[in-house]
Order: sequence, then structure tokens, then C-alpha cells
Amino acid sequence: MERRYDAFSGEWRSFAEARQDRTFLPSSSECPLCPSDENGDGGEIPRTSFDIVTFDNRFPTFTASPPAPSIVGTDLTPVAPAIGAAEVVVWSADHNVTLADLPVERLARLVDVWAERYADLAARAEVAYVLTFENHGTIVGATLSHPHGQIYAYPEVPPRVRAELLHARDVLATRGTCVRCETGTFELREGARLVADDGTTTAFVPFAARFPYEVQIQPRRHATSLLDLADGERMSLASVLHDVLVAYNALFDFPLPYVLALHQAPTVGPDWLRVSHAHIELTPLHRDAAKLKYLAGSEIAAGAFVSDVAPERSAGALRAAKERAISTGRY
Amino acid sequence: MERRYDAFSGEWRSFAEARQDRTFLPSSSECPLCPSDENGDGGEIPRTSFDIVTFDNRFPTFTASPPAPSIVGTDLTPVAPAIGAAEVVVWSADHNVTLADLPVERLARLVDVWAERYADLAARAEVAYVLTFENHGTIVGATLSHPHGQIYAYPEVPPRVRAELLHARDVLATRGTCVRCETGTFELREGARLVADDGTTTAFVPFAARFPYEVQIQPRRHATSLLDLADGERMSLASVLHDVLVAYNALFDFPLPYVLALHQAPTVGPDWLRVSHAHIELTPLHRDAAKLKYLAGSEIAAGAFVSDVAPERSAGALRAAKERAISTGRY
Repeated sequence: MERRYDAFSGEWRSFAEARQDRTFLPSSSECPLCPSDENGDGGEIPRTSFDIVTFDNRFPTFTASPPAPSIVGTDLTPVAPAIGAAEVVVWSADHNVTLADLPVERLARLVDVWAERYADLAARAEVAYVLTFENHGTIVGATLSHPHGQIYAYPEVPPRVRAELLHARDVLATRGTCVRCETGTFELREGARLVADDGTTTAFVPFAARFPYEVQIQPRRHATSLLDLADGERMSLASVLHDVLVAYNALFDFPLPYVLALHQAPTVGPDWLRVSHAHIELTPLHRDAAKLKYLAGSEIAAGAFVSDVAPERSAGALRAAKERAISTGRY
Repeated sequence: MERRYDAFSGEWRSFAEARQDRTFLPSSSECPLCPSDENGDGGEIPRTSFDIVTFDNRFPTFTASPPAPSIVGTDLTPVAPAIGAAEVVVWSADHNVTLADLPVERLARLVDVWAERYADLAARAEVAYVLTFENHGTIVGATLSHPHGQIYAYPEVPPRVRAELLHARDVLATRGTCVRCETGTFELREGARLVADDGTTTAFVPFAARFPYEVQIQPRRHATSLLDLADGERMSLASVLHDVLVAYNALFDFPLPYVLALHQAPTVGPDWLRVSHAHIELTPLHRDAAKLKYLAGSEIAAGAFVSDVAPERSAGALRAAKERAISTGRY
């Protein structure tokens, strides 16, 4: 396993051949994430019950003590060890639950665990960026159906994050604002793309969303990471996240697959703090109940996103879905 | 329909609500791309036979005379008309053929058509970048099964292309080379990632490929677009493309879905010519016969690609697949 530098883009990419044979959609009786009394000998969690457990990924992309790379680099094509971390966060012993089913208090406890892992990984000198994410559903690539999230600790700020932070720095220089602070105020005033807001945390479909039902959730005030949030603010974040997840599941009357990602400030010094505004991105792939938004020519080759659904329309559909969930007792 | 500016990334994105109801996987008897005597009344091509036809997309993302945007922009969230072009290239009257089935001479004629469309669109003042692409297979989002390609003419250089060109400019400044010229020489010398080469055109799996079976095809010499290529060089490009497509279909013994994209120089002045080296990118999503490489948390949220297959291994598998195709008469 190693990281390789792409000469065409200047991006580092990761190669982990051992992952090719990782556990792939096991039956629930062989689930490695179920409590040990339910999963025979194959379990990774030697407990008979638990609320939230985190541990190193058995098939890591990054690790604290990586092996030597499998290939020798050149000055055109540098190679580096896959140093960093890849962790698994199992947040329920129940194989058949989704994040939307968790009570807000349990979700707030998960937010606390995300904060603890961020603090712990940020303290490692080799870590530059901590991404907490969850691939929910086989159509976004989940290879284990037991509910779980993941944490990657990258040894550099990854390409998309870096591009956004550099752009945010330009906005700070020209407009004098944190672009997320200004956007939060803008979306509250406009209303058309709002999905939820409780006075502390705001959820909205971005004005130029990449995915039709993409939602971003952010604290109203400039918090650079979960570590900046007081207990009540974390509870608010959990509550608004719950609102969005409930709306997702009511939208088409099935559990909507999505990628969830929590972005926090890079962990390499104070340079990025003024332009780092913590936020959760939720990116479902569906464009309606039966059709997916595929990343194809324009997105994969040119990086230019094309969407068939106006963000104002999808935000309205999500608000209506939440109301339906409330009125039918699914909230 | 309109283009919207994303305040977080500085990217322009396209919104075309009419596309949400575009024709979706019609039965072959209702195929809009079959000759008019085979498709009842629904056809778009009023001919009883043809070799290659190009026309404007009925459900365009960009168009020469766009309507006013559906929403008013602000200085934080600019909006612009969806000016540009979206064309369809139907390169066979046969509903059930794939690009790999075309004789090299027909493929060379398609390359000529791509060159003609590039020249024509480049002459339009509002066009900055021409992307020729093909989404082959429903898993990469094709909504019509009749074989066809597409051409998007963007009014600005799209994000991923721009990032690569800016990086190529850095390489030119620091190493004094076109990064594609240097990489071509490097891959010919190394050999491990070569898929095909005929002395004029080189095909290789990139050293840090985003997708396991990604292949890039480029002229050995610094050609900025197809317009720089003589007839013999276009024939060589077609021949090497044919080699790769045959290898793809023999790899797992089924027609491999992929996105094909032809990159040529931006059409907005001479600034980019020294760092624009025309190339075809082929990005299949499969990581083995039964599994896909999904874009998930690391890729969608962080832009950091993770692969489970070493490029040297996939290049070897593609070379072996081509040999199998030749020995079993499928070449």
C-alpha cells in the first residue's frame, strides 16, 4: 500500500491492494460488526452489547505504521507511505437500524465521539486532515450493511477540501467574510433553500448543489470544528441532522442512500482557521424515486456538475417530506 | 435552465430542469436514435440509413440561444445563461453495436467528425472548452442504449480541466516540459503500465489512476487537438483506441461500461497551447468482474481517490485480455 502522486493534477492518491479482498456484503449471520454473541467467530467487536465503538479498519487505506510502498517513485511520479489513520465507528449493535432511527440524544453522543476522534487524531503530527464520513447504502459503495461510519486521517489536506479552503481565502480577502458565515445568513434570509433551522444550526440545499438532494448543515456561528461547540450546540447539530435524515427517509418512502461527510478544520496549524467553518455534507445520489444522478462524462472528465433538479424545488420537497413524517408519526 | 456559481468552490454548475423528464431507457422499438424506418414516429434522425450523424441534444445542458435563467443571482451567488452547445453524435445505425465492434477505418472517420465538431465549436466566441465524451452503459448513466457520444461546449474551462492545466503550467515552469510529453516518454521506458503503442500513439494506465482500469491514450508528439493530427496520426489514434476497447470487452468477457472523454486545448486563445496535449481518457467503474469502484466518502467529499488495484496489475490484465481477444478471433 502507498500513496502515489498524479503528475497531471498534482493530487495524491491512495492504493491499497489488500482492500480488493475485503469483506463484501456478508450475510447478517456473519456480520463482523454485530455483537460477538450474534456473529459466530467472525466478529470484530468482542462484546455482547455496545452503544458506540471505534477501532482501526482491518482493511485500511491509511495506517499509523505503514509498510514500505510497493513501488519505487521517481521525481515525475513520487511515492509516499500510506501514513495516517482509517477507523470504523459502529454506532449501534442493531444490524437493521439507520441513522435516522437513532434518538437525538444518541445522535448527540455520536457527535461527541466524532469530536473525541478529531481531537485524538489532530494531536498526531503526521495527520493534516480528519474526514468523518458514512457511506449509507450499497449504491454508494457500502460493503457492510451493518450501520457504521468511517474516519480517514489524511497526511495532507485532500484536493477538494484544499480547493475550497483556498477559494474561501479569496472570498475572505475580497469580501471580508467567511463564505459559510455569509452563506448561512443569506440562506436564512432567502428561505427558499432552507431545510431546517433551530436558531443555532442551519440546514440548506446549496444554491449550486452538486447533487439534487444535497444538504449542508452548519452551525450559525463560526465554529472551526466540533471542539468549538458547547454541549447545547452539539445537541442542536444532532437535532437538525435528525430532521434532515427523517426528511430523507420520507422523501420517497424508502431509506435514502447517501454519503454523509463531516468537514472540520485541517489539523496542521492555525493558517486555515479563519476560513474553516465546520459543516456536514449529505449527498444522496437519487434524482427521483427511481432514477439516480450518475457521475458521468461532464462530472468525471471535466469536473463540471450538471443537475436536473432546481435546489429550491428539492428543498421544498424535503420540507414537505419532513411534515409528512411528523404527521404520520415517523418523526 | 441556467448556470449557477458555487460560492464555496468558485465552480460554475449547470441546472437544466427539462432534462429531468428526458427519454429514459426506451424499448428498442421506440429508440429515438435508430433510423426512421425502424423506430415508428419517435425518431430524431429522419433517414433510413446513416454512418455518423451529429445534431443538437433535444434536452440540452448548454445551448446557443439560452432562455433567461430561472432565478435571479446575487453578488454572492451569481447566475448566468446556459450558453454553449450540447450535441449528440450517433456513430452507427445499428442499435446493438459497441464502439469496440467498429472497424478501425470507421473509428478513424469518427475521429474526423470529432475534429470537425471541435473546429466548428471553437469558432464560436462564447465557447471556451469542447468536451467530447461517451457514457457507455447504464451503470455510468446512459439513458439511451443506442450507441452514441455527446459533445458539450462550455462557456468557461471546466473545473477539473482548469486545475490540470494550471498544474501543467507549474510543471512547465519548474521542469521545462509538457507533463504529458514527459509522461509518455516515461511510460514507454518503464513499460509496466503500457497497454498499447504503435510508435505514434501511446495507451497506458496512469501511474496514479483514479479508476482501477482507467486508460489514457495520447499522441506521442505534442498535439494540442485533433486538428494538429495528420490523417495517418488520426488512423493511429483510432487503431490504439480500438486495441483498448477490444481489451476492455475481453477483460471480464462482457462489454465493459466506461466513460470515454476526449480532451483538447481550450478554444479561448493561445495561452493554454503549450500545456494542452490532446488525450482520450477511458474510465470504467469496475474493479473486478462483479464489483464496482464506487465514488464514496473519500472521493465525493474530499476529492481523494482510493484504489484497490495497482495500475501495473491492471495494465498487465489489459495486455493479457487483448492477447486473449486476438487468439480467439475477437480482434
